[in-house]
Amino acid sequence: MKKRILTGDRPTGPLHLGHFVGSLRSRVELQKSHEQFVMIADVQALTDHHDRPEVVRQNVFEVACDYLAVGIDPTESTIFIQSLIPEIAELTIYYLNLVTMNRLKHNPTVKQEIKQKGFGDNVSAGFMMYPISQAADITCVQAQVIPVGADQKPMIEQTNEIVRKFNQTYKTDVLVECEGYYSKFTRLPGIDGSAKMSKTLNNAIFLGDPADVLAKKVKRMYTDPNHLRVEDPGQVEGNPVFTYLDAFDPDTEKVQELKDHYSRGGLGDSVVKKYLLEVLEAMLGPIRERRAQYASDPAEVMRILQQGSERASERVQQTLDAVRSAMQINYF
Amino acid sequence: MKKRILTGDRPTGPLHLGHFVGSLRSRVELQKSHEQFVMIADVQALTDHHDRPEVVRQNVFEVACDYLAVGIDPTESTIFIQSLIPEIAELTIYYLNLVTMNRLKHNPTVKQEIKQKGFGDNVSAGFMMYPISQAADITCVQAQVIPVGADQKPMIEQTNEIVRKFNQTYKTDVLVECEGYYSKFTRLPGIDGSAKMSKTLNNAIFLGDPADVLAKKVKRMYTDPNHLRVEDPGQVEGNPVFTYLDAFDPDTEKVQELKDHYSRGGLGDSVVKKYLLEVLEAMLGPIRERRAQYASDPAEVMRILQQGSERASERVQQTLDAVRSAMQINYF
Repeated sequence: MKKRILTGDRPTGPLHLGHFVGSLRSRVELQKSHEQFVMIADVQALTDHHDRPEVVRQNVFEVACDYLAVGIDPTESTIFIQSLIPEIAELTIYYLNLVTMNRLKHNPTVKQEIKQKGFGDNVSAGFMMYPISQAADITCVQAQVIPVGADQKPMIEQTNEIVRKFNQTYKTDVLVECEGYYSKFTRLPGIDGSAKMSKTLNNAIFLGDPADVLAKKVKRMYTDPNHLRVEDPGQVEGNPVFTYLDAFDPDTEKVQELKDHYSRGGLGDSVVKKYLLEVLEAMLGPIRERRAQYASDPAEVMRILQQGSERASERVQQTLDAVRSAMQINYF
Repeated sequence: MKKRILTGDRPTGPLHLGHFVGSLRSRVELQKSHEQFVMIADVQALTDHHDRPEVVRQNVFEVACDYLAVGIDPTESTIFIQSLIPEIAELTIYYLNLVTMNRLKHNPTVKQEIKQKGFGDNVSAGFMMYPISQAADITCVQAQVIPVGADQKPMIEQTNEIVRKFNQTYKTDVLVECEGYYSKFTRLPGIDGSAKMSKTLNNAIFLGDPADVLAKKVKRMYTDPNHLRVEDPGQVEGNPVFTYLDAFDPDTEKVQELKDHYSRGGLGDSVVKKYLLEVLEAMLGPIRERRAQYASDPAEVMRILQQGSERASERVQQTLDAVRSAMQINYF
């Protein structure tokens, strides 16, 4: 039997190359070998976008277009919208009883994010609780494999703690533990050279960027700041142009040649960038085209999301029936 | 149009005279003038009984029998089980985003209960969040009137804060503010003279107590400890026997006579207790009988709960449709 995967994204913006490297690409592979659920996490997006629901609404559609464009196949993967599965909220409420406030406060990921976002004591209860909500996301479809970055290991641990506590408390084995699946490339630098590509940092190449926008972005990419003249030796490490080539060019020999040449000196940034643009365009061109097709047919995209959500709902119903029975709240 | 009431109980034990005085009696009155929803709060009971689901399960039935026995009429009131309305969990999750952790920590009722129950830092997230869950209970049926004790005023305030924040954030008027309805007698002393009648303190007279148990409990009631001989003057204030007469004997003149006689001296405790037993038996006899009838027909009781829950569900669907629409998560 195929193992079940849960994965997904918060719909707070269209997806970019960072998402492609970190997760989208592997989802296209994993959907063949796994039973894959891909969740558009609108409810979770509202935890820190509660006052901008229109942003979340619009990006549910954008993210769905991105998924379909990269080749997440709705006949192989189940793409669904989180808010259409209210049982996730129900599970979250039950799990809240199994986690102490003390434990929540010491979740390293949450602690760091509260600090980063400057929430302090004004952090909302919803944000504070989101690791519990994620445990509900994962367990509602009884997912066994969760593709995540290494920084999200605490989330896997919190989920498995809840799974064990639930099964022990209610003398059941309905919930299953999950394991993280850590992909090789999990983080892509921004075009400005900063560690992470992100919409907020305005350093992202989006999957839907038109060809001319892509060209402009590649042109203004950060490289080795000390590589002033073509004949100078250049630095390959930490140079995002080469990081992108490593991530996207299937011709690894060619990339090695370019790296050697660049290191020796005599290879100009503009030449490498021109080549990178070709590599990216070869990959993104067809994605952009498929994306435009889907974006021009919202009814079809929404039909796919509705069908996926119905399929997810059926799976979740089975879990909830067993959960309610274990908790003895199955009255009828 | 009749105003809507939400009221209810946590099913952690059968109901006693304290509940009768504090809420049950007024519900029988209020159901005539109001559209009354009576919730058996099994999910809330699980916040501090998560490891004893069998207690909650059993008492859902006991509490339903108590309701029906005292005259809460399922054709006039909507009696429903909280867990059968998963939309309450859904609303709770949305409201969590509108309340800061700081605000939650300073809820006086929660603070006091955490102290009383000795939870400290080990308080569960579920318990910490329950004021938000209560706001969901109230607003899911758009209740306007909430019968509560004065100590629960902070709960009404928290609910109205959420209502205002939600309506303001999502530019809507779907949620309505509520007001507390404070009944005259809100607390009945235990038969041991302690301030509160409670199952835990083992000082309660239950609605279903058999006649002989009732007689024994009245016999061992705490009175004036200095009233050693019949001819001594006795203390009426703080004497639970007289507090019960005030609460339950419709013949106020007779009660006044007894009080005067007791204060002067010459009236023995056993005589007053015998009279109190007559008063209580006159009231509880018919309740006990109806209760036994319902308890012997679980299928009928569960049918009533199922019908009530379906009726509540219809009402709640209307609220959720409007809530999801305001939050722009109404995709289909």
